[in-house]
Amino acid sequence: MKLICTQSDLSTNLSLVSRAVPSRPTHPVLANVLLQADAETNQVSLTAFDLSLGIRTSFNAEVLEGGAIALPAKLLVDITSRLQEGEVTLDDESALDSQTATGEGLIVTLTPKSGHYQVRAMSAEEFPELPIIANTEPIQLTTAALIEGLRGSLFATSGDETKQVLTGVHLTVKQDTLEFAATDGHRLAVVETTNERPLDNSDQLEVTVPARALRELQRMLGHNAASDEAIALYLDQGQVVFAWQNQRLTSRTLDGQYPAYRQLIPRQFERKLTIERKQLISTLERIAVLADQKNNIVKVSINSAAQELTLSCEAQDVGSGRESIPAQISGEDIEIAFNIKYLMEGLKELPSSEIQIHLNQALTPVIFTPLGGLKMTYLAMPVQLRN
Amino acid sequence: MKLICTQSDLSTNLSLVSRAVPSRPTHPVLANVLLQADAETNQVSLTAFDLSLGIRTSFNAEVLEGGAIALPAKLLVDITSRLQEGEVTLDDESALDSQTATGEGLIVTLTPKSGHYQVRAMSAEEFPELPIIANTEPIQLTTAALIEGLRGSLFATSGDETKQVLTGVHLTVKQDTLEFAATDGHRLAVVETTNERPLDNSDQLEVTVPARALRELQRMLGHNAASDEAIALYLDQGQVVFAWQNQRLTSRTLDGQYPAYRQLIPRQFERKLTIERKQLISTLERIAVLADQKNNIVKVSINSAAQELTLSCEAQDVGSGRESIPAQISGEDIEIAFNIKYLMEGLKELPSSEIQIHLNQALTPVIFTPLGGLKMTYLAMPVQLRN
Repeated sequence: MKLICTQSDLSTNLSLVSRAVPSRPTHPVLANVLLQADAETNQVSLTAFDLSLGIRTSFNAEVLEGGAIALPAKLLVDITSRLQEGEVTLDDESALDSQTATGEGLIVTLTPKSGHYQVRAMSAEEFPELPIIANTEPIQLTTAALIEGLRGSLFATSGDETKQVLTGVHLTVKQDTLEFAATDGHRLAVVETTNERPLDNSDQLEVTVPARALRELQRMLGHNAASDEAIALYLDQGQVVFAWQNQRLTSRTLDGQYPAYRQLIPRQFERKLTIERKQLISTLERIAVLADQKNNIVKVSINSAAQELTLSCEAQDVGSGRESIPAQISGEDIEIAFNIKYLMEGLKELPSSEIQIHLNQALTPVIFTPLGGLKMTYLAMPVQLRN
Repeated sequence: MKLICTQSDLSTNLSLVSRAVPSRPTHPVLANVLLQADAETNQVSLTAFDLSLGIRTSFNAEVLEGGAIALPAKLLVDITSRLQEGEVTLDDESALDSQTATGEGLIVTLTPKSGHYQVRAMSAEEFPELPIIANTEPIQLTTAALIEGLRGSLFATSGDETKQVLTGVHLTVKQDTLEFAATDGHRLAVVETTNERPLDNSDQLEVTVPARALRELQRMLGHNAASDEAIALYLDQGQVVFAWQNQRLTSRTLDGQYPAYRQLIPRQFERKLTIERKQLISTLERIAVLADQKNNIVKVSINSAAQELTLSCEAQDVGSGRESIPAQISGEDIEIAFNIKYLMEGLKELPSSEIQIHLNQALTPVIFTPLGGLKMTYLAMPVQLRN
């Protein structure tokens, strides 16, 4: 294998795929990035795979001699990111010269504009194959739709690894739409995006994808893709693949029955509010300073005569705070309490300047939706109000 | 006490002084900021003091009623930094209304444009007095000189709290100059700055000031002061005070004999190099990726015929790297090894584009100085070269 590429292509692509390199690899080869160089197409592909999450990217290079080799990910990322701009030559031929005597295995030489680096490499044959989903019609969606779906759901996943399926986002594929849902047991976020083109197959398919893989997907899309770029999504039991341009992300899916979340969302409401989202968030951020001192509970008082919402918190032995915000209110006055973190996290991801809040009683689910735009539903459970 | 000030003055000054609030106060009152409002001058001063480091700032306000009170630092910083811009009223009168019944102490009411916050306060009388140094002629120096002195010395202090005086910067006051010195036992940094005006008293005075206090000073100066602003430095056994504009930082000094560092610096050298500083740093950063895998040792080979310096590192079982840089060299060839971190930290603070390196043998102290400009000396001890 011998190739010449730019420092920037090598460094950018290495740092992209290296996100899938496990910090504590179960097998030494998993600490590597698989480099495959094709002399016919002059394409170099890089792959990292922790046996659950896999990322592959490719870029153009002058491939003088094709081949494949597994290179130590962290070391190579650290060196190449610090190299000056310009051409870099990668070569594993020197392995014969310098190592046959000691028989200690493969060496790759990295020759930037100035300097000379050698790193110990491993055989490409030891690197596990990235899963491929064949014979499946992909769902086509735009980058913008995928980013919206991820943004509106990922934050609501559980961080508790013992909760299994709740650490992922549940994807429901329908003919025309793709639904993203996430819940950690205290709140629920659901986003419905539209497929670029309807599927031929109208069967409903559901999978739960680990949040970790989707966060990497989100990061990759944020960096690299135009918002109208098409993404193909291949789903299968046990595996999903997202593919676009020269990039591909694969992930195993999470086993287990996802909660029947649709039945949690009430259909009728006794009270309805319309309120300016950013003002509500910035007020909550101030009240949160006090709530942080006392179980994170904020009291929300809805006053329909004054057409205002009052947020307050009494933190005994510390202090208290109270602020009111104008709102369009229909329904009777009520006092209700929330964990302020759940409230803020959901409000931050609702994609509109005004939002609607629908509720019934003080201890029944409260629904937050954007006014216009994306189809998103955020459900937060109120908590018992203690004085 | 009752006053009206702007949110920005209150928030900025609170966050400045709160750096001196201990995270684990030994006495409850030390978790507070002392607020003193003067109705005659319409000045509000804020003070925080952990019994070693003290910071006081003051700002203009409309003081309707003078007084003093101790306010919970963290809570107040967090609330005021999140308030909208505009006027804020601070008032402790309501203490009478709301608290006499329960007799639970002082309450301060914070009334921003919208909303109403109350925090539990403490009596100003419990707050310890900030030390004052009287009857001493201050050293006058510019902010620029002080910043240079701090920048060129602070990084070389020891982080090991058991090393006592080495955790501080040693200041030597002479009639015309102020010398900053720091060492952690492996390297030494010395900077000499010029006083704005000579002292009348020509006695040499030396103190060691904790790095923590000087880092806060550096931060405050970076944020607030023009570079030609004069700073007064009051020194006494046991205490130092830096005072400028409306701000003041006090610190206790460190006890113990500071090492006689001047005698460590050789006066004659067998070898001399002149080299471009940034190129040397960026090359070291790449070699450091490999050195990081093996005791952080970099080998430096000085080649006078080629007029170049070669940096290299062999990290067994991992890889190797080698780069050469042009340099003006006088003296015989030599190979010498350094802890790469000590080398890089010193080079980063040398304030010139070209630097000089002076050395004798492979295991004697090596001296780095800027070419022109500030008087700074950086001494690094080489290490044994092992192959």
